[in-house]
Amino acid sequence: MAIDPKLNAIEFARNQKTTFLNSLKEFVAIPSISTNAENKEDMWVAAKWLSNKLTEIGIENVKIMPTDGHPVVYGDWLHAPGKPVVLMYGHYDVQPVDPIELWDSQPFEPMVNGDYLMGRGTSDMKGQVMASVHAIHSIMQSGSFPVNLKFLYEGEEEIGSPSMQKWIGDNTAMLKADFCLNPDAGMLDKNTPTLTKGLRGLVYFELKVFGPSADMHSGMAGGIIHNPAQAIAELISQMHDADGKVTLPGFYDSVYQMTAAERREFAQLPHDEVFFKKVSGVEHLWGEKEFIPAERLGARPTLEINGLVSGFTGEGQKTVLPAWAMAKISCRLVPDQDPDVVHQQMLQFLTEKAPNTIRWELRKLSGSPASVVREGQPGLKEMSDALVSMWGKEPVFPREGGSIPIVGYMQKMLGIGSVLTGFGLPDDNLHAPNERLHLPTWYKGIEALIHFFNNF
Amino acid sequence: MAIDPKLNAIEFARNQKTTFLNSLKEFVAIPSISTNAENKEDMWVAAKWLSNKLTEIGIENVKIMPTDGHPVVYGDWLHAPGKPVVLMYGHYDVQPVDPIELWDSQPFEPMVNGDYLMGRGTSDMKGQVMASVHAIHSIMQSGSFPVNLKFLYEGEEEIGSPSMQKWIGDNTAMLKADFCLNPDAGMLDKNTPTLTKGLRGLVYFELKVFGPSADMHSGMAGGIIHNPAQAIAELISQMHDADGKVTLPGFYDSVYQMTAAERREFAQLPHDEVFFKKVSGVEHLWGEKEFIPAERLGARPTLEINGLVSGFTGEGQKTVLPAWAMAKISCRLVPDQDPDVVHQQMLQFLTEKAPNTIRWELRKLSGSPASVVREGQPGLKEMSDALVSMWGKEPVFPREGGSIPIVGYMQKMLGIGSVLTGFGLPDDNLHAPNERLHLPTWYKGIEALIHFFNNF
Repeated sequence: MAIDPKLNAIEFARNQKTTFLNSLKEFVAIPSISTNAENKEDMWVAAKWLSNKLTEIGIENVKIMPTDGHPVVYGDWLHAPGKPVVLMYGHYDVQPVDPIELWDSQPFEPMVNGDYLMGRGTSDMKGQVMASVHAIHSIMQSGSFPVNLKFLYEGEEEIGSPSMQKWIGDNTAMLKADFCLNPDAGMLDKNTPTLTKGLRGLVYFELKVFGPSADMHSGMAGGIIHNPAQAIAELISQMHDADGKVTLPGFYDSVYQMTAAERREFAQLPHDEVFFKKVSGVEHLWGEKEFIPAERLGARPTLEINGLVSGFTGEGQKTVLPAWAMAKISCRLVPDQDPDVVHQQMLQFLTEKAPNTIRWELRKLSGSPASVVREGQPGLKEMSDALVSMWGKEPVFPREGGSIPIVGYMQKMLGIGSVLTGFGLPDDNLHAPNERLHLPTWYKGIEALIHFFNNF
Repeated sequence: MAIDPKLNAIEFARNQKTTFLNSLKEFVAIPSISTNAENKEDMWVAAKWLSNKLTEIGIENVKIMPTDGHPVVYGDWLHAPGKPVVLMYGHYDVQPVDPIELWDSQPFEPMVNGDYLMGRGTSDMKGQVMASVHAIHSIMQSGSFPVNLKFLYEGEEEIGSPSMQKWIGDNTAMLKADFCLNPDAGMLDKNTPTLTKGLRGLVYFELKVFGPSADMHSGMAGGIIHNPAQAIAELISQMHDADGKVTLPGFYDSVYQMTAAERREFAQLPHDEVFFKKVSGVEHLWGEKEFIPAERLGARPTLEINGLVSGFTGEGQKTVLPAWAMAKISCRLVPDQDPDVVHQQMLQFLTEKAPNTIRWELRKLSGSPASVVREGQPGLKEMSDALVSMWGKEPVFPREGGSIPIVGYMQKMLGIGSVLTGFGLPDDNLHAPNERLHLPTWYKGIEALIHFFNNF
């Protein structure tokens, strides 16, 4: 009697829990912070670790491929004739750890605390990458695989994937596939299997405002020279109106208007006011009043100040009129906004609003459009069924607030859509201190992925 | 034939130029940054160095006296019966050195470059302190002195002298004097001997704005939670109106209104638009249009943003919605503004303007009122004559933009006025990188002080 390959794989996965967790810990321990120049070498260490892992589980043609930025790990397994080619996506880079003093453990010394694995990248997304690798390993150890596989693991997702558009363009033949499986999208909560229907785009700016040629004594220049810290505050304060709308000229012109049916869908999502007050700790929410929070998150564009610095910020006092001020500013984009057009809108805003008493410079650090999963997307039904197998109910299909530039590039340059899922949770502290991975959900996710591949 | 004691002192000073300079270099080399907790020990080193120097030149009862903050150096010489008691004021603390990367030399390794001695505190005001010490030494080496002397050298001027009010109050008998000589006020330029007629006061705040309880992913919270970096910018942008006026409620209510004669005096000062464009490098000035720059500097109150920080400020990008934002904000005050009243005005402004979507905290770091030199101030005529002796012309009497809290405390608590002069220049880069002292003016200043003491 033949052994059911799926049951065999699931049994293998259950037996390997400790091994799987230890392997993830090794991966998390590599400080692959893509935005830090001092971690450049660590990016190669992480890529090498991941490529070794792929080779170990039986993936072929594994290679580390340079890009203009951080390297890509590629591999494939193409021995399932007549079956689809699934492009497995992931990123091995992580966010910076600042403010480090707010971590309760060392970000790169992963440790289990109750149901959680603590550490930078545990959830976003080394845990998700390893869930795929472990699921594939669990099936492949029996000698075969139900679909064809290609792997694209990048090292630039957390900095907006600046090199990936070019790199994908240079490698379209190698990357040809039927669809992409992207487990970077997460779940609404641990009881709600989730297939993300849309992602917002992102355009990220650095704005510098210059005043006097050097820091000056505030008593010798204040009230006479326009203070650049004040001037940048004056500019930032004009970027939203009193209703919380972004004031860049034309910002909403190409924003897709939701249908009544879409708004009804949003109204059913659990992301309500109570949810956001709970996760943020604030007493009163803010933003466009005519849209509920779930709509503001999934279907409305935003403009955020991600960082601000000028003058003296140490302990005590220094009476300085600073020479310059800097702001990190990013916009989340929705269909059909174009990041290059938003860049032009920001330039126009600054040209119109900046007074002649200061100088300014705007740098665009990255830009990617929003993306929406189409009806009939290959792989969607198989993933939906897999999630039902594990959670016993149909998944929800939210549009997400975050951004994954690669999804847009794959659509545009490879002509393939992405199945967007993942097993991260909203309270995993992504991009924040004490990032963590809910291990029971992670193990469940590994089994869901085994189901998924066996649904073809 | 008796030797003219003044000529003898001047000859001595001219012969000691190298020794005097080397002594100043030793003093500058001590990193006595009063605002830095890590330099606490250096404050004592500087106080000790200075007290040794006073003892060396013949000053008596020299002692280092603790305060609630940094110590005071006291000393006296009281052997000129019937002559006035001059309270010599100075501060041995200096400003921080940030941004350190903009210095062309090490701030605490003083070095001569052409006509200048480069280093933190060379001009503000270790150079001025040592000009007094060297002048007194030059006279005293002949065995006598034309007036009685007391010394008060504090270590908190650059942080707003927070402990001095209490300390002076505790030591009024010891500090009894006829007037104070305060050489912390500087010259308009190297050819213009200057006696400062007024100083502005200062109140220094730290404002913190709090948003979510921890940094959040900007794609998961932007447009829903009020961004504290944006909120602090919105508050700051409302602190001035379109005419450059400060909008704190009642801010100008007790501002002394200049007379027509006073405005004519200001119009004659060399601090015009061309001057400020030159020293700052900006193309267009900013501020209250109905007042000329010299008035804005000397007779108008201001509000300045001295520092600003929030979120991610490193290289590259991080899509964070920050948990908090902080601004350092200070107001220069003129007669008859009260720093405590301005503190209340700032609290009222924030109470009225801050939205309920954020929390805020305001700390007052220091506060001191403005001060004005009265007609007939003891010592003024003697100093004016001394400056004429050296520069060959009458001094100008500007009101200065800076603040020296101690001047107000001495007036209020000791009942004495201050003669405000000094030999620092506007382009000495006070409070900024590459602070420097113009040595020819410094040597001239030492001789001017010798004349001054001998004018009694």
